[in-house]
Amino acid sequence: MNRLVVFFTFSILALLSQAIELDFCVGDLNLPRGPQGYACKNPTTITTDDFVYTGFRGEKATTNIFRNNVTLASAEAYPALNGLGISMGRLEFGVGGVIPLHSHRTSEVIIVIRGTIIAGFIDTNNRAYYKRLEVGDVMIFPQAMLHFQINVGRTSATAFVSLNGANPGFQLTTPSLFAGNLPAQIAEQITLLSHNEVMRLKRAFGTA
Amino acid sequence: MNRLVVFFTFSILALLSQAIELDFCVGDLNLPRGPQGYACKNPTTITTDDFVYTGFRGEKATTNIFRNNVTLASAEAYPALNGLGISMGRLEFGVGGVIPLHSHRTSEVIIVIRGTIIAGFIDTNNRAYYKRLEVGDVMIFPQAMLHFQINVGRTSATAFVSLNGANPGFQLTTPSLFAGNLPAQIAEQITLLSHNEVMRLKRAFGTA
Amino acid sequence: MNRLVVFFTFSILALLSQAIELDFCVGDLNLPRGPQGYACKNPTTITTDDFVYTGFRGEKATTNIFRNNVTLASAEAYPALNGLGISMGRLEFGVGGVIPLHSHRTSEVIIVIRGTIIAGFIDTNNRAYYKRLEVGDVMIFPQAMLHFQINVGRTSATAFVSLNGANPGFQLTTPSLFAGNLPAQIAEQITLLSHNEVMRLKRAFGTA
Amino acid sequence: MNRLVVFFTFSILALLSQAIELDFCVGDLNLPRGPQGYACKNPTTITTDDFVYTGFRGEKATTNIFRNNVTLASAEAYPALNGLGISMGRLEFGVGGVIPLHSHRTSEVIIVIRGTIIAGFIDTNNRAYYKRLEVGDVMIFPQAMLHFQINVGRTSATAFVSLNGANPGFQLTTPSLFAGNLPAQIAEQITLLSHNEVMRLKRAFGTA
Amino acid sequence: MNRLVVFFTFSILALLSQAIELDFCVGDLNLPRGPQGYACKNPTTITTDDFVYTGFRGEKATTNIFRNNVTLASAEAYPALNGLGISMGRLEFGVGGVIPLHSHRTSEVIIVIRGTIIAGFIDTNNRAYYKRLEVGDVMIFPQAMLHFQINVGRTSATAFVSLNGANPGFQLTTPSLFAGNLPAQIAEQITLLSHNEVMRLKRAFGTA
Amino acid sequence: MNRLVVFFTFSILALLSQAIELDFCVGDLNLPRGPQGYACKNPTTITTDDFVYTGFRGEKATTNIFRNNVTLASAEAYPALNGLGISMGRLEFGVGGVIPLHSHRTSEVIIVIRGTIIAGFIDTNNRAYYKRLEVGDVMIFPQAMLHFQINVGRTSATAFVSLNGANPGFQLTTPSLFAGNLPAQIAEQITLLSHNEVMRLKRAFGTA
Repeated sequence: MNRLVVFFTFSILALLSQAIELDFCVGDLNLPRGPQGYACKNPTTITTDDFVYTGFRGEKATTNIFRNNVTLASAEAYPALNGLGISMGRLEFGVGGVIPLHSHRTSEVIIVIRGTIIAGFIDTNNRAYYKRLEVGDVMIFPQAMLHFQINVGRTSATAFVSLNGANPGFQLTTPSLFAGNLPAQIAEQITLLSHNEVMRLKRAFGTA
Repeated sequence: MNRLVVFFTFSILALLSQAIELDFCVGDLNLPRGPQGYACKNPTTITTDDFVYTGFRGEKATTNIFRNNVTLASAEAYPALNGLGISMGRLEFGVGGVIPLHSHRTSEVIIVIRGTIIAGFIDTNNRAYYKRLEVGDVMIFPQAMLHFQINVGRTSATAFVSLNGANPGFQLTTPSLFAGNLPAQIAEQITLLSHNEVMRLKRAFGTA
Repeated sequence: MNRLVVFFTFSILALLSQAIELDFCVGDLNLPRGPQGYACKNPTTITTDDFVYTGFRGEKATTNIFRNNVTLASAEAYPALNGLGISMGRLEFGVGGVIPLHSHRTSEVIIVIRGTIIAGFIDTNNRAYYKRLEVGDVMIFPQAMLHFQINVGRTSATAFVSLNGANPGFQLTTPSLFAGNLPAQIAEQITLLSHNEVMRLKRAFGTA
Repeated sequence: MNRLVVFFTFSILALLSQAIELDFCVGDLNLPRGPQGYACKNPTTITTDDFVYTGFRGEKATTNIFRNNVTLASAEAYPALNGLGISMGRLEFGVGGVIPLHSHRTSEVIIVIRGTIIAGFIDTNNRAYYKRLEVGDVMIFPQAMLHFQINVGRTSATAFVSLNGANPGFQLTTPSLFAGNLPAQIAEQITLLSHNEVMRLKRAFGTA
Repeated sequence: MNRLVVFFTFSILALLSQAIELDFCVGDLNLPRGPQGYACKNPTTITTDDFVYTGFRGEKATTNIFRNNVTLASAEAYPALNGLGISMGRLEFGVGGVIPLHSHRTSEVIIVIRGTIIAGFIDTNNRAYYKRLEVGDVMIFPQAMLHFQINVGRTSATAFVSLNGANPGFQLTTPSLFAGNLPAQIAEQITLLSHNEVMRLKRAFGTA
Repeated sequence: MNRLVVFFTFSILALLSQAIELDFCVGDLNLPRGPQGYACKNPTTITTDDFVYTGFRGEKATTNIFRNNVTLASAEAYPALNGLGISMGRLEFGVGGVIPLHSHRTSEVIIVIRGTIIAGFIDTNNRAYYKRLEVGDVMIFPQAMLHFQINVGRTSATAFVSLNGANPGFQLTTPSLFAGNLPAQIAEQITLLSHNEVMRLKRAFGTA
């Protein structure tokens, strides 16, 4: 009898059950979620396709007000990321397109694939760091800092971002204030914006 | 049609599902607990009241043997803290009241709101750091170090504590030894206390 | 010879050097800083006073534009917090005083000590959670979420906050945009604010 | 009435529910698993036996191809470790026995209890650190580094290892390549091994 | 006098010193390194250029034995990543180019920018997950798992990777065994490779 | 020219500088310490001996008051552990020897190598879990819980412990109270021990 097969059997017996789920924990979106992510999908149902995300393929329309298109590959859209502490996004910019001011729980790196953008962040001392990025350039946006990207080229632009969390929690500053249920009076008091400007933006977001 | 509304819809579509649960994870105390806390309550049932804790309001009687009253706002009493790594407590001291020697998994800061206390901790070299604190004073008790507080003023006193864990796990040294099921003989061997003293304390705690 | 003294000597020999610095690491602000905080002050120079912070004592003037006063007890002002993952702040509100919209890397709890405030935060789905808090009430602001506090009582108000980081990094939204070096044109593009409003705010902050 | 009993009751009331599960979280292997481990077993069913592991007792046969026997006390075999970030293993070596090249997510310490082994690891600069260890000697294998142990004595040998994770995920290099479903052609391309050698090893593991 | 300027001054005073270094900690490669990364460069010397990495620009020759070119943007080459827990790499594949079997301390995501590759990883149960990826496709390689990429298209290919650590520690399996100082006899024992194959590979790497 | 040598050179160039220090960070005890451990020793001076600890070899006298001997292999005695989050200790028990009540920041596993002991811990609900352990048995002491070990056999005993921290910070309860500078009056108030017992113990430790 083959002695190596004996070893193989041994290693399976010793390692099979304990390791298979924690090598990865593909999220089961139907189970209750915990503070560290989703419960793991039954490992016997997992295939290679769970680990591959194809949602970035193809053209992305940039017809919204910011002339951008954001596709997020975070744990909900790509459950294999669950528990692994990393995620991605594709940013598509029309001519003049903008990713408006926002922040999140994690740090982020951006790489420009097509076109020319200005990317920047602001630190807690109100100092802005911003620069024109060409194809292949990378910029880091440190954890929780406000940041933005603007297409400053004559053509559309594409960038990919990666964040060190499976679910970074994007918070867009202007929509936070005007697109939800925050009362206009509070918005004014906590931003110093004028009443007229607050109402103009609430009307624009349909919440006036 | 309003172009900003289109953006708003876009941002909702892109961000709604992935972010809402992990911005916070209000604990559902009826679901199985994991090592990192409770599973998250269904986010559609969450209201502002989940995020506000009112259990510190009002007078607190200090009639126990230590003439203290401890109210803990940790994850069980205040499930919005679940997964967020922070909790609080209100300490009320009668005249001569004491928070006896204890430790926990996390660090703690205390702030005195009323009265005068001596607070202190002991490091692993057996060195005690203790000081008289007045209203507004803060002291830090580093992670896992034994510490205590004593009301040394002529009136009752109040302090608040904050700990960097949602469930810090308070372990009171004397009750650990005498208020539970630890046999007297073991208690003697592991503390060098005399048999008589051990039995006196077990009687005091009703476990002799 | 006393046998317990022998044990004591043993325990000192075994534990002295390895533990004393890591029970705590009072920051030495003169040494290079690392990503996890300051290098530790020489442990032989540490006294109880290092662990006690008295900067919250006394009255605090609320004469700035927001009629607030913020005193931060984070690692720079209170180096004993270095490496221990917790910090505090005192918030003083004049009548009508406001802590404007801001965010930070950590979660925060607030407790009201005097007066009546409205406190709130906004999640990444643009939903605002805000509520009137009375003396003794606590609210949690989850990690990285935009939040604010407003004195809505007829008197001044006081609150203490605690954050689960020694150096939370407060980022005030409006000053980030208008009090630093971010160009007006970029500020407009990334916020949708009007040119006039941006210029009004830059003038107000002296950066136009 | 006994005043200490009152205190005892107080402390039970204050601490019972919040702390008991998080002092430990003995894994319930029948509940869905999360990225940080198993959900906790109902604490009312827990006994001292949950915290004690006896699977290392007795003789262990070393009859496999590597003349070794590996017994893992990780979270699946010893659910009390769940969430506590530590685990152990017993390594038994026949004469000439080997623990082949492997790696895992965590760091590991080994202590030799019987016999003489050579233990070593390789860093990311391809430098190997290996040494002959006698009874009582300890070696550290840093996180994720390839490492191995070889019995070089004239007798069998025993060692214990401890790893700072409850489920370290042992990945054995040679079986990874030849004992599973990786195609021979890919194995050749990614290792530079010859076709003949790859096929010899796949035959040995029964996967040719 | 402008009241907003007063506020601005206030916020600078309150926040300047504590926050500026920890918003980011650009590594100073000349200072001693700690387990969590480099000490921080003097913040007064930091400019926007510190946050931008341009080393991915341009063509990359794929003339080595694997017909690949790997450019790493980790903390040493891009010190702004220090302490922020994220890094990137550019992978260039000639026709038939391969990134050979390797592992690291962190998880990794790959995105294909040009060409067609097969990417895969092997779990601790020896199961390989591998798939053909087209432009725009993403694959996740979970923490510490062995993985690889092979250009299977008719043209050269480009991919970017991101890893959730500033210094992931790439360990290439075959060079670990044959390109360094590991003795041939040990290499044979811990891999089951034949003596002839080990010597062939050591000669190929110039270490026989 | 040998093409593999080219690859080898490539991999050295790409990986050498960034990886070598962070694969491990052997502590340099002469440099300032940070909250996460020591700064790293110059990697060019590191040899295999840095990774091997031989301090557990040989007999250990158990002549102190507790008839025990504790040898700690933590980061100060064994600097290769620095930053790797694991450490060990050897516990030697004379007949009747005891490791008295203590706690630390980390979890601990114990394995009995010789003799018979009772080991136990107490949870925050004052419940003690203790059991007789034979050779080969393992027990887990969860993070920060008070615990102890007692030799209950007729011979001396040996055990090894492993802790998931490089510097766990052992805090011995009785010496904390009586072997240092804590005043007797405070010791009484925070423990409920009698004045006579406190003075007896202070005399025993030479601090009365």
